[in-house]
Amino acid sequence: MPEARFLYRNCLGGFAFDRNNSIVDSGSLDELKKKHPEAEIITMPSLQILEAFKYEKHFKKFREYNIELAKKKVKESFTRDQLIVQTVSVIEDLDKAFNSLVKRLRDWYALQSPEIVHALEGHERFVKSVVSKEPKELIAELNLDGKMGADLPSDDYGMIMQLAHMVEGLNQLKDEQDRYLEVLMKEIAPNVHAIAGTMIGAKLISIARGLEKLSKFPASTLQLLGAEKALFRHLKTGAKSPKYGVLIMHPLVANAKKSDKGKVARALADKISIASKVDYFRGDPIGEKLRKDMEAKFG
Amino acid sequence: MPEARFLYRNCLGGFAFDRNNSIVDSGSLDELKKKHPEAEIITMPSLQILEAFKYEKHFKKFREYNIELAKKKVKESFTRDQLIVQTVSVIEDLDKAFNSLVKRLRDWYALQSPEIVHALEGHERFVKSVVSKEPKELIAELNLDGKMGADLPSDDYGMIMQLAHMVEGLNQLKDEQDRYLEVLMKEIAPNVHAIAGTMIGAKLISIARGLEKLSKFPASTLQLLGAEKALFRHLKTGAKSPKYGVLIMHPLVANAKKSDKGKVARALADKISIASKVDYFRGDPIGEKLRKDMEAKFG
Repeated sequence: MPEARFLYRNCLGGFAFDRNNSIVDSGSLDELKKKHPEAEIITMPSLQILEAFKYEKHFKKFREYNIELAKKKVKESFTRDQLIVQTVSVIEDLDKAFNSLVKRLRDWYALQSPEIVHALEGHERFVKSVVSKEPKELIAELNLDGKMGADLPSDDYGMIMQLAHMVEGLNQLKDEQDRYLEVLMKEIAPNVHAIAGTMIGAKLISIARGLEKLSKFPASTLQLLGAEKALFRHLKTGAKSPKYGVLIMHPLVANAKKSDKGKVARALADKISIASKVDYFRGDPIGEKLRKDMEAKFG
Repeated sequence: MPEARFLYRNCLGGFAFDRNNSIVDSGSLDELKKKHPEAEIITMPSLQILEAFKYEKHFKKFREYNIELAKKKVKESFTRDQLIVQTVSVIEDLDKAFNSLVKRLRDWYALQSPEIVHALEGHERFVKSVVSKEPKELIAELNLDGKMGADLPSDDYGMIMQLAHMVEGLNQLKDEQDRYLEVLMKEIAPNVHAIAGTMIGAKLISIARGLEKLSKFPASTLQLLGAEKALFRHLKTGAKSPKYGVLIMHPLVANAKKSDKGKVARALADKISIASKVDYFRGDPIGEKLRKDMEAKFG
């Protein structure tokens, strides 16, 4: 065996090199050290040493190793706040689907019983009523005089009912996802949840594309999340600058006097910003205290 | 009983009037004729006679009668082609809901198994696969190396599956509605159906807001139904005038050479226009013949 001059270790294992920078031995670095006590261990390999790995056999191993590494990184890049981002989007889309299909259902049902469609104003109440009761029962129950609609054959009525059940299913799934979102928020961002509530907190995380990014925003940015359109209109045309985005839905902002809304939104954004940092770094609970402070000041 | 001078009948029944235009008797006109053989039957009442009906009792009766009449008219105004209009809208909305939610499902599922989402390109195939098989089975079946995704707890996976089942349900309902639309078209507009097919025929009836209106359009209007945007752009800005709307989806137009598409669309619009008139007036079947003529000429 030629004399080993250098020992070098990379992800493929340990290697011994002779003076010509050719590989003369391989194995674990410990073994090699024992076998070649006089060889020098290098950590910054020379170009010549790296070239030894260009051969097919090593190159293939390197490639495989890199792919494994990339997959591991993809796997590790998943953080549970992404479930919040997904769930917010799903709820928004379920809501849109429910709203457009319930309007279709109303139009269609009105061919048969316009009185019922007119009498049951709320979408949810309407859907629950028509899937659980026959038109005749509803007309009696609501004290209507049901003479206006067409008499639809049962095949046609059956198709309307299929749509009604689907619309009801969309609404139920939306409720389930709302509950799931609350569970996720309490687990992943308990402090943001305590002060902002489930939907507002989740929307902030969703717009920021994650808890880490949200925790790094200055409070002034957080205050305007959800008002991107108005902000760009302000920057572009000089229109009035927005004072709040999704925070407008928060009871403290919504119930504030018009002239105070901006001030309350700014204070709220400060507190939520602190809460998001605590959540991201898994600090001691502070959300309840922040919420009480806000309520004492503005509630 | 004072002498009856006039007999008059309206929707409330028959009435006998004295010389002062006061009501002195009432009942069916036949009875009144027998009781007051000398009285004159009038069909065009004087203003004085009409004023006799202003009294509360008669006025209320009139009002009720009018409401009944209006309800009857509403009921009679229903024609079965409205079911086609409704069903086309429902299918369009189900399609939109399916498309937006299946994209959400893909995003969400990708947190767990990006390889599967990538491998199953078609939306329908993707949904059918993920609701019927566990990720592990799919990874084995598709020969994937599933190391990239996160390991989601079963609660989170369960929520993804709920969405998957809903998305599959939307797709199934859309298929059902497609079949129902075909049944409706064959029943209500068999000739339009024979030459235009289910979806194109139904869309034309839907855009025209009914078979009657479609049958009254000139063929040149029918040719452009569905191209309203392009038509108004043409009228407003002088951009190129559109040559076809929904007819572009018809195989004869879609498969024609680009330079021939306008000509084929015009001929097709002529035939569909004839077919719609036959359907509206319930004439002898002509759709198959029209279709064969078109196919012989342009097919």
